[in-house]
Amino acid sequence: MSFTHFDAEGRAAMVDVSAKPETARSATARVTVTMQAATADLIRQGRAAKGDVLGVARLAGIMAAKRTADLIPLCHPLPITAMTIDLQTGEDSVEIEATVRTSGRTGVEMEALTAASVAALTIYDMCKAVDRGMRIDALRVVHKDGGKSGAFSQA
Amino acid sequence: MSFTHFDAEGRAAMVDVSAKPETARSATARVTVTMQAATADLIRQGRAAKGDVLGVARLAGIMAAKRTADLIPLCHPLPITAMTIDLQTGEDSVEIEATVRTSGRTGVEMEALTAASVAALTIYDMCKAVDRGMRIDALRVVHKDGGKSGAFSQA
Amino acid sequence: MSFTHFDAEGRAAMVDVSAKPETARSATARVTVTMQAATADLIRQGRAAKGDVLGVARLAGIMAAKRTADLIPLCHPLPITAMTIDLQTGEDSVEIEATVRTSGRTGVEMEALTAASVAALTIYDMCKAVDRGMRIDALRVVHKDGGKSGAFSQA
Amino acid sequence: MSFTHFDAEGRAAMVDVSAKPETARSATARVTVTMQAATADLIRQGRAAKGDVLGVARLAGIMAAKRTADLIPLCHPLPITAMTIDLQTGEDSVEIEATVRTSGRTGVEMEALTAASVAALTIYDMCKAVDRGMRIDALRVVHKDGGKSGAFSQA
Amino acid sequence: MSFTHFDAEGRAAMVDVSAKPETARSATARVTVTMQAATADLIRQGRAAKGDVLGVARLAGIMAAKRTADLIPLCHPLPITAMTIDLQTGEDSVEIEATVRTSGRTGVEMEALTAASVAALTIYDMCKAVDRGMRIDALRVVHKDGGKSGAFSQA
Amino acid sequence: MSFTHFDAEGRAAMVDVSAKPETARSATARVTVTMQAATADLIRQGRAAKGDVLGVARLAGIMAAKRTADLIPLCHPLPITAMTIDLQTGEDSVEIEATVRTSGRTGVEMEALTAASVAALTIYDMCKAVDRGMRIDALRVVHKDGGKSGAFSQA
Repeated sequence: MSFTHFDAEGRAAMVDVSAKPETARSATARVTVTMQAATADLIRQGRAAKGDVLGVARLAGIMAAKRTADLIPLCHPLPITAMTIDLQTGEDSVEIEATVRTSGRTGVEMEALTAASVAALTIYDMCKAVDRGMRIDALRVVHKDGGKSGAFSQA
Repeated sequence: MSFTHFDAEGRAAMVDVSAKPETARSATARVTVTMQAATADLIRQGRAAKGDVLGVARLAGIMAAKRTADLIPLCHPLPITAMTIDLQTGEDSVEIEATVRTSGRTGVEMEALTAASVAALTIYDMCKAVDRGMRIDALRVVHKDGGKSGAFSQA
Repeated sequence: MSFTHFDAEGRAAMVDVSAKPETARSATARVTVTMQAATADLIRQGRAAKGDVLGVARLAGIMAAKRTADLIPLCHPLPITAMTIDLQTGEDSVEIEATVRTSGRTGVEMEALTAASVAALTIYDMCKAVDRGMRIDALRVVHKDGGKSGAFSQA
Repeated sequence: MSFTHFDAEGRAAMVDVSAKPETARSATARVTVTMQAATADLIRQGRAAKGDVLGVARLAGIMAAKRTADLIPLCHPLPITAMTIDLQTGEDSVEIEATVRTSGRTGVEMEALTAASVAALTIYDMCKAVDRGMRIDALRVVHKDGGKSGAFSQA
Repeated sequence: MSFTHFDAEGRAAMVDVSAKPETARSATARVTVTMQAATADLIRQGRAAKGDVLGVARLAGIMAAKRTADLIPLCHPLPITAMTIDLQTGEDSVEIEATVRTSGRTGVEMEALTAASVAALTIYDMCKAVDRGMRIDALRVVHKDGGKSGAFSQA
Repeated sequence: MSFTHFDAEGRAAMVDVSAKPETARSATARVTVTMQAATADLIRQGRAAKGDVLGVARLAGIMAAKRTADLIPLCHPLPITAMTIDLQTGEDSVEIEATVRTSGRTGVEMEALTAASVAALTIYDMCKAVDRGMRIDALRVVHKDGGKSGAFSQA
């Protein structure tokens, strides 16, 4: 077993995907921002009147996904063809789910994870003045589809 | 209690920090990448010979921190004056700690969190071909210093 | 009379502002997106329920302003310290006003104009499927303050 | 009638174009920078000897078009295959026309509009020290071609 | 003989490649960083223990290649499908070789040259505190393949 | 002797410059693009009529310098306060000299080198269709000023 991003002498490289066909691919990532119940309340109320924290976070996530290959050193650039980000406030948390699609030679897990991450960081930024102890937890790929390695799902 | 990034009518804005003095500030963020023990082993061995996953992740985190204001919509641009990222492999995890310093009008929590996040995402990217079930957990600010709101620490 | 961005031989250059003091500066730019009355209606209704076009445009404008020096070749990089964007729907238009502040060696007109421009382009993008004939008009600086050349206002 | 960039619950998203074929597309946008006659004169003379304002603006527009998807939140990334920008000085104005081509799943109106906008902003930047009252007017798509919605032209 | 990046009236433009087929292409560029023998020694030793200058330079080169079209004004954006950078320390130099592959409508010489350049600049940055007189020499394309103009090689 | 960009355990880091004062700094870099005499002729003639290769290269260099900290991993972000790029055609070459100024905590050698590099790469890009064997040589800092290490000059 060895890493695909290094050659036999341990040198980092962008994996050669030149010979792979372009196929339909999708990936979904999830993450949770844990916060005080008062902060989650404020976000829910803000939705309607005082400022749409979730709307800002959604936009930030979408824009960040388009820059994934700029951020992750060995990631191939990919033309995203669809993206949605769903955000739900819980009692003391916000649940984020990001889904990305493309037609390309590599998967879009990194794009989905980047979208979810930056949406979570944006919530942190907007709420940090009222709640300094927030945590971002359980960022993971919950579903992926397309490509040679086939479909994958986990909770 | 209300959010600082919205005005009275709920419109998002960059908070006015024009009148704040430039002071020395620092922030430290931590995050854990949970993985199979075999993956953590591979990273440890690679350090020496087969490819430096942690070195690549460190660089990615440092470069991402410099682009924080490009990623987080309402974040002020800040000239980072120092940054270190420490990565330690555990039995089935990698622990990441990022510390950022600046002399500026706002804090550098977002820079430290962004550095830690992107370092973690980079580890995910480099290991995903051998371990699809990794999780990124417990991203939080563990220390912050400087500015009007004073020092803050949590585990 | 001659241009400040070219030397005596006509070569483009970034003007030398090294000797200028850092002073408080602000600038406000305005622009109008002209559209069908039905499109303006849709935006107004959307505000409440179907999708916040103006909220997306505001975010896009704020983020673009931070990248002004990346877009305008001879523009000096500046650390923005405050930014607000106000958007109002009229009968058959959206009026946009962007205000930017900094403490720096050059003015922030370009940042305010870039914010207003990109907010307007974003409205165009979101509405173009229902109204292909929109126009973006009357982009101009309406107020500027600070720096050697002093205050300036126009309608 | 509703906006394509929001789902049924009003959440912003990148429209799913995964199933669309890649077809040849082009778009042309126009914009006018209105200025004092003396400023337009200076630009015309500069062309030859004192500094090529229009050449700088053309480059800025071309480079900006390549970053359209970075600036416009819900815009799909597209590989531009051709771009020209024509700039003509009038008595008291500069007329800008930008044409962009691609082979892709979505149109290139936003790329053409972004190119024209940033070219206009660059003229503003280079002339603002001699003429503070310039205006940027009548930015619109004058022609578009390719894709399901077919050709479109307006003056 | 004339330049392809200008039209008949001397206006810069992105060459129209819309009608070209997407074909497999590769390019290899080389460059030499000349330095004091003591500096080259330090780099060689660092490899093992004190800091991996070459590893940092490799990553910087790979990331820069992905941004080639952002840096070179008339360069077409291209989805890189593979990239490797090899760095060898000599007695008083580091030799860098960058190879890039894509499937696209234009060649990848600029991507390979940009990767080699930025890797060399990064070595300069990391060693400049101990050796201010370094030089970067002989940056050139040594091999290119694919496209209408066919293969090309030079020493 | 050791590298400043690594800590005692060989981990890359952004050097801590928090305690350094902001002082006036400048740096000048030079580079030569070697080409066929016919190519140099074409550039000289183009200057007047067929396309301003040097003007495009100058702009590219200026814009790239503003993105130095995005490209060079451990480079501190710096607000450039002045920049000029001079390009001279010789019999079979173009000589490029880039000068950058700032008021900051670190020097601007990397900004000057990046400006000169990208200007040279841009000349390569624009001339490669007529001359595939060009070389970029002798990129070095010829002068630097300001900061603790004092002035430095070399040919």
